[in-house]
Formats: sequence, structure tokens, C-alpha cells
Amino acid sequence: MIIDKLIVKIQEMGNPTVVGLDPQPDFIPEGLSITEFNKGIIDAIFDIVPAVKPQIAFYERFGAPGIEAYFETIKMAKDKGMLVIGDVKRGDIASTAAAYADAHIGHAEHADFITINPYLGGDSVSPFLDNCRKFDKGIFVLVKTSNPGSADFQDLYVGDKYFYEIVGEKVAIWGEELIGEHGYSAVAAVVGATHPRILTKLRWYLPSVFFLVPGYGAQGGTAADICHAFDKDGSGAIINNSRGIIAAYKNEKYAGLDFAAAARAAAIQMRDEIKEVLS
Amino acid sequence: MIIDKLIVKIQEMGNPTVVGLDPQPDFIPEGLSITEFNKGIIDAIFDIVPAVKPQIAFYERFGAPGIEAYFETIKMAKDKGMLVIGDVKRGDIASTAAAYADAHIGHAEHADFITINPYLGGDSVSPFLDNCRKFDKGIFVLVKTSNPGSADFQDLYVGDKYFYEIVGEKVAIWGEELIGEHGYSAVAAVVGATHPRILTKLRWYLPSVFFLVPGYGAQGGTAADICHAFDKDGSGAIINNSRGIIAAYKNEKYAGLDFAAAARAAAIQMRDEIKEVLS
Repeated sequence: MIIDKLIVKIQEMGNPTVVGLDPQPDFIPEGLSITEFNKGIIDAIFDIVPAVKPQIAFYERFGAPGIEAYFETIKMAKDKGMLVIGDVKRGDIASTAAAYADAHIGHAEHADFITINPYLGGDSVSPFLDNCRKFDKGIFVLVKTSNPGSADFQDLYVGDKYFYEIVGEKVAIWGEELIGEHGYSAVAAVVGATHPRILTKLRWYLPSVFFLVPGYGAQGGTAADICHAFDKDGSGAIINNSRGIIAAYKNEKYAGLDFAAAARAAAIQMRDEIKEVLS
Repeated sequence: MIIDKLIVKIQEMGNPTVVGLDPQPDFIPEGLSITEFNKGIIDAIFDIVPAVKPQIAFYERFGAPGIEAYFETIKMAKDKGMLVIGDVKRGDIASTAAAYADAHIGHAEHADFITINPYLGGDSVSPFLDNCRKFDKGIFVLVKTSNPGSADFQDLYVGDKYFYEIVGEKVAIWGEELIGEHGYSAVAAVVGATHPRILTKLRWYLPSVFFLVPGYGAQGGTAADICHAFDKDGSGAIINNSRGIIAAYKNEKYAGLDFAAAARAAAIQMRDEIKEVLS
């Protein structure tokens, strides 16, 4: 099952991180296309980082050619043996969700995982579950996002639980039939690094739910924060970093390195920081 | 302001409906491309229907060429004087939402309105509001969707209010600075036809929030249901119908008509049904 492949790859590399391929125009050195930039990053990190997470908004912005670059990026990463999380945050009524599922996890060449927005409820998630089963794919459902505004709705207190806990419970239920041999389901969750106490609580509360943790680095999450996302064996989560890796070359610390070498150096540093807090 | 243009166009045509351009493969007559099919529909209805709503999932499914067809469809509809609601249901943290806003309401040639998923909270909506101001665009924020699963989260009871009421209140606040001369804001809401009591309540509760009402026809919403979406002057809402119009030619009732003629006949019938309940 795809979630097992991800867990094994993380273990083999000793590195529970994913590099966000968010090609914002000011991250890309003059003269390079999105695809060339991503190729440089992928070639520089594929042997030390298990996965990449292209954020489709930064491709979609360029219309049809951007979408081509998105799928080309997925292909390049897979060709190098990396796992791919397509950060698409789609969600719609069932007939439409089925079209989104076919668009993004409907084919071997698509991403291995995508992110999903649960606002429309269980029947809107079902078509994605169908494709997880059919094509050995996985989904990360938004439970508690990393941004400050996530408090507006996700932190509402409903009866005796927070809204994000209710969503988290549903994610666990949706994933019951897709639990792999490592005890985690291919139906996983997004929980931001910026809420360490929530991470701690949800890790305990949702033992079969693997976490994708955004918000490390630029958004303020530290290695000490994200250690709460992991179980006692140091598994159960993957930490995303986007601009901290792909735009590392703009950081004084990596002066003199080109964007690819700086990305590699920053990825190694992040891996080692997390290793340290987990040991 | 774009919301005023929509309201005036609805008044002029005496028709508060929008035709959903959801080109599911089994809706399209053999041998036609998505764009040819949509052109046939648009040419058949542009003089009696104020707006179309392409659902991007059904385009995205075909990758980059699908996205081209999506934007080509927007262009065809605008060239015929129709308003366009891009049903994209995007939502993400602010920096990413800004990219989505630029992708979909960042240019005169883009859709006039798009749909937005509010799950990530206020800061995730701000970039869309910025583009509404800059480019005279509008957004429809998901408040209460038409699908049965919408009950899972949207109907949770929080303190003394339903979750969808709390989201609705936020929509009204986000839209305060974008209220047009007809009293409605360019920051509007999606409320499903399948919940007539909720429509009634929200219409009263959110007097400045214009409604996009999906779920009429195939999903079970009737003219008697959707009349609750309108204010006392018969304004304040636009009702969507997708397959009931674009796939009308598959209905026995329209036997002998080609897809375009059947779409026109079905659109006229829907207009007249709504006229009757509103009079």
C-alpha cells in the first residue's frame, strides 16, 4: 500500500521530510522555466529526501502550460524514485469529486497522494477513497491547517470537542479499510506545525492517521514543535518545507551555493535537526 | 460592480438562472469536443440566460488541454455577453490563495466570479477579496452545500448557532466593503436548493449576501424550494442547473431536439417555472 511505501522510504533515508515544490516566480533564478527549476531541485535532493509536494496553485496560475509543468514535475520526481504528494486541496459534491479524483489520482502516473478539503462532508470524500483503493493512492485530508486563520472555523468548540477533532475522527473512520502493514492508513491528515499542542493531542487521539505537517520554517514551526507529530517509534508523520529548501539560495547562510546545492544543504540541515529532536 | 451587473442582467432577462457547463463525457454527443459542445449550448441560450458556471473539475480531468477548454469556454460565454461563474472551490493559506486568485480572477478575461471553500478561514479568503477589488470580480463562498454529506460538518451545532450560520456571518463581514448599488455584496454565498428551510433562514439572516443556489433539478431541489432564496423583490439569488439543461436532449420530453435546442427549451421551462413561483 502506498502509505507503507512512504513509511519505508522515510525509514530508509532516516528523513521524515517532504520538499514543497512551490515555484513562486521570485524563487526561480532568472532564465529558468518552472520545470527546469524543479528538475534542479529534484536532482539535488532525490537521494536524501523521500518525497516532494508540488502546490498546484503555483502551476495553475500559468494556465494550461502551468498544468503541463505540474504533471511533468510529478513525472520527474517519480522517475527519480521519489514519492509525490499533489497539494491540490480539492473537494466538491460526489459527481464532481469523482472528476477531481480522476484528474489527480486516477492514473499510475499521477501523484501518489493528494490533499483534500473535507468541508463538503463524507460523500464528497468517497470518490477519492474509491480511487485510493483502485489505484493504490492516498489522501491527506485537511484537519488543522498551519495558518492563523485556521482558528476561525477549525477551532470552533462543538459540544465537547473542537471542530478539527470531529474532522480528525471522520478521517480515521474513512481510512479504516485502508490501513497498511505499518498501522497507518492511506487516508491521512494535514495538521500544521504551528500548533504543537494540537499535534500532540491528535497524535494520541488518531493512532492510525498519518500526518502531513506543513508550517515548518518560514511559517514559524520549529523542530521542537513538530516532534509531537511522531509516534513513539519516530514514525507517523512527514514534515513539509517549501521555501526554506527551494529558496535556500537566497539565504545568507548558503551564500555562494547555486539554488540546487543550497536546497541540498538546507534539506540535509532540516533532516539533521529533526533527527536530533527525535533521538 | 460585478454583482450589480449580474443583478441587472437577471432583471433584464427576467431569469435568475445560471447554466452549469459540466461537460461530463456521457453528456456530450459523439464526435464533439468539450469546446464545441459548450459553444452549442452558449449559442442556444445566451439571449435568455444571464450566466454560465463551468465546473472546472470536468475540464481539469483532461489535463492541460482541459484547462485550455475551460478558459476557452469562459471566453466564448463572455463574447456572447454572458456572465461567468468559475466553479473552482479553491481555498488555501494566504500565499497560495493569492496564486489561486491570480489564476482564476486575476485578469479581465478570467471568470467574473469564482466559488471559494472557506475551511481555512479569513486569512485564506483575503487574497480573493484583494482581487475582487482590483479587477472587479466576485466570489461565492461555500456556506451550505447541496449534497447530503453537507450535514457532516456544516450542520454541526456550535454554541447557539449552526456551523453554516457562523460561516454565513463571516461571509457577510468579508463582503461589507464590496456592497454594490443594489444592496448586495460581490462577496456572495453558495446555499443549496435542497435545504429550503435553511435558505429561508439565511435569506433573512444575511440580507447583503447574494446566493448561488445549486441542487435544482437532478439533485432534487424544486421551484417551490428555491423561491426561499429570493428577497421580497425577487432578487438576491441565482439558481444553477447543469445536467437538467445541458443534457436535456437525453430526456424523453425533448425527444427530436438536438442538444442545443433541447437546452434552450429546458432553460425556457426553468425560467418560466421560477417566474411562476416568484409571482
